[in-house]
Amino acid sequence: MSGWSAGLCAPRLDERAARLLLSRMGEPYDEFVQELVAEYGVLDLVGYALRDGHTPDGTGLGRLLGRRERALAADDGHICRALGLRVLVPGDEEWPGVLDELPWAPWCLWVRGSVRLEEVPERSVAVVGARASTAYGEHQAARLCMDLAERGFAIVSGAAYGIDAAAHRAALAAGGTTLAVLAGGVDVPYPRTNADLIARIGQVGALVSETPPGGAPARMRFLARNRIIAALATGTLVVEAGLRSGARSTAKNARDLGRHLMAVPGPVESGMSAGCHAEIRMGATLVTDAAEVIELVGRIGLDLAPVKQGGVREEDVLDDGLRRIWQWLRPRRSSSVDEVMVRSGLTMAEVLAGLGELEELGLAEHLLDGWRRRSAR
Amino acid sequence: MSGWSAGLCAPRLDERAARLLLSRMGEPYDEFVQELVAEYGVLDLVGYALRDGHTPDGTGLGRLLGRRERALAADDGHICRALGLRVLVPGDEEWPGVLDELPWAPWCLWVRGSVRLEEVPERSVAVVGARASTAYGEHQAARLCMDLAERGFAIVSGAAYGIDAAAHRAALAAGGTTLAVLAGGVDVPYPRTNADLIARIGQVGALVSETPPGGAPARMRFLARNRIIAALATGTLVVEAGLRSGARSTAKNARDLGRHLMAVPGPVESGMSAGCHAEIRMGATLVTDAAEVIELVGRIGLDLAPVKQGGVREEDVLDDGLRRIWQWLRPRRSSSVDEVMVRSGLTMAEVLAGLGELEELGLAEHLLDGWRRRSAR
Repeated sequence: MSGWSAGLCAPRLDERAARLLLSRMGEPYDEFVQELVAEYGVLDLVGYALRDGHTPDGTGLGRLLGRRERALAADDGHICRALGLRVLVPGDEEWPGVLDELPWAPWCLWVRGSVRLEEVPERSVAVVGARASTAYGEHQAARLCMDLAERGFAIVSGAAYGIDAAAHRAALAAGGTTLAVLAGGVDVPYPRTNADLIARIGQVGALVSETPPGGAPARMRFLARNRIIAALATGTLVVEAGLRSGARSTAKNARDLGRHLMAVPGPVESGMSAGCHAEIRMGATLVTDAAEVIELVGRIGLDLAPVKQGGVREEDVLDDGLRRIWQWLRPRRSSSVDEVMVRSGLTMAEVLAGLGELEELGLAEHLLDGWRRRSAR
Repeated sequence: MSGWSAGLCAPRLDERAARLLLSRMGEPYDEFVQELVAEYGVLDLVGYALRDGHTPDGTGLGRLLGRRERALAADDGHICRALGLRVLVPGDEEWPGVLDELPWAPWCLWVRGSVRLEEVPERSVAVVGARASTAYGEHQAARLCMDLAERGFAIVSGAAYGIDAAAHRAALAAGGTTLAVLAGGVDVPYPRTNADLIARIGQVGALVSETPPGGAPARMRFLARNRIIAALATGTLVVEAGLRSGARSTAKNARDLGRHLMAVPGPVESGMSAGCHAEIRMGATLVTDAAEVIELVGRIGLDLAPVKQGGVREEDVLDDGLRRIWQWLRPRRSSSVDEVMVRSGLTMAEVLAGLGELEELGLAEHLLDGWRRRSAR
């Protein structure tokens, strides 16, 4: 990757270099900067900042200029080689396209580790929860994450105390994949007492941050990185959370993104389960084991296939039409034919034929009040 | 009440007498009898049984005739006076009309106690759960039922061991109203070890059964009475239940009747919470305290009114239009204006004006993603 060296003039600025510079000059959560990026794009905005100090309509960019010299001085090529990192920007093959669904996507991501980021959102669960977790919560995180990791789901979390650490550790213990999205730079392990765990995640999983190397894990950066945790995962699971827990901001991001949101229940007197119960009351799916998580985030054929019969593999027989029907069936509530019609955009004849076929495949069942998704477990 | 004395001829048979006779000759859960009742009505069916032994189209009624002599011999007027009971049939002022919503309504109800049954469904919670409850579940039942009883909600349950008993006891301790629907006759306390509790419920609350006095609490009668528990209550709350608990049959009845169904979560390892978690996954509302129960089963004005301001009572100001809007707002999820329009059948202008008015009254709030019901608690 080629950084944009200090002292060279504007014509050498390209999108990648502009994004790296912006990530060192501003903060992604700064609404002032977000609005300017939305209006001008990163490349032009950084160009204005470096060249004129203001936008064409005269908006002063002083807020970005305070860190300009330091940003220009940073040699990201050298830093990445020295620290064993890579930087991703939109358009890179490894850039997870789902990040662009965020209201304010990261400008770039620093990554350490061998996991390819673009594959993560297809088969992963963000497991988040309280720092001040209880033994109950840590046990649930460990149990669920071991089972999920064994089934090939990457565990995405934030490397914090408590539930985060229990989730990462369980994934590592199961020989699975785990990613930690950090608030500070990927070379700044935080909290310090989790430094060994974070180092291990960087070796066998991946450390990810939108904060440049060396950046401090400042408070606002924690809230901002929660949106990346939610976006990188197929679904988000809240294991334990107080009513005002940071984990609930990750949950909110998952909900806003339309991702599956799940929560583990617990004793009603436990303040650490109160946030989970509140999320369930707001629509999160209550889950008690990995199978129930996979029922939501798993893929048909791979995870939900019934016991094999006669050598027919479900992923071979399910065409697009059947998939479109199947995806609107729910495992625990019945859907009417009308509902499936409306959602799938198929005709009644197509829906009825498809439901019959899914029933024969053991992937749907017809109950008195409608149709349900069926799995073989 | 006038029974139908043995030895008198058919002309004296009326609807009430026929229902009492049928309840002694057949079982309400007997599908054969249900179908005949649906076809001929109770009065004609009993007439055929007593007079001909078969229906006009020749269907034999031998199944009902085995207990005919005993039924004819019973002097219900005497029994009721002796045991301090009353019998209700449809059309009686005290008959709860909601019972007629059941797929197979009771033919009659024997009642002991001072509570007027027709008022119960308006302000009551059926609290059901495992016989083999845990200390956790009993504590939750007690806590919730005391609070509900103090707020004027009748607690309906089945006088069984475990959660049922904890629920009744808490209601009694709070000086509230409680009803036990029994599988056997109201004069047959079962389980025997709860005889004192059942007697107390009969003194200050009410004992209810569709089984005639003296009738044994047979297995099928337990399942059948669960539908009466669900029908008599505004909503049903499952406190603890195994996956195959009888409490879940009450839950199913509540769901089938379109009543509010709620469940208390618990530790995921607890088999006694597994049924609650399954119900929540199927759509029951997770609740952790009485306020959350009342949010569902309470009445506007009485339970959900905000703190009084300036002497205005909400029940005075809420006209039908506002009520129609308010009832489609949910306390925990936002509804869009479109959604409220579709559901209420009002125009956009009416909905917008109504929402604004509800907001001023403190009964709705406008959030980023739509409108929510608001309560003053």
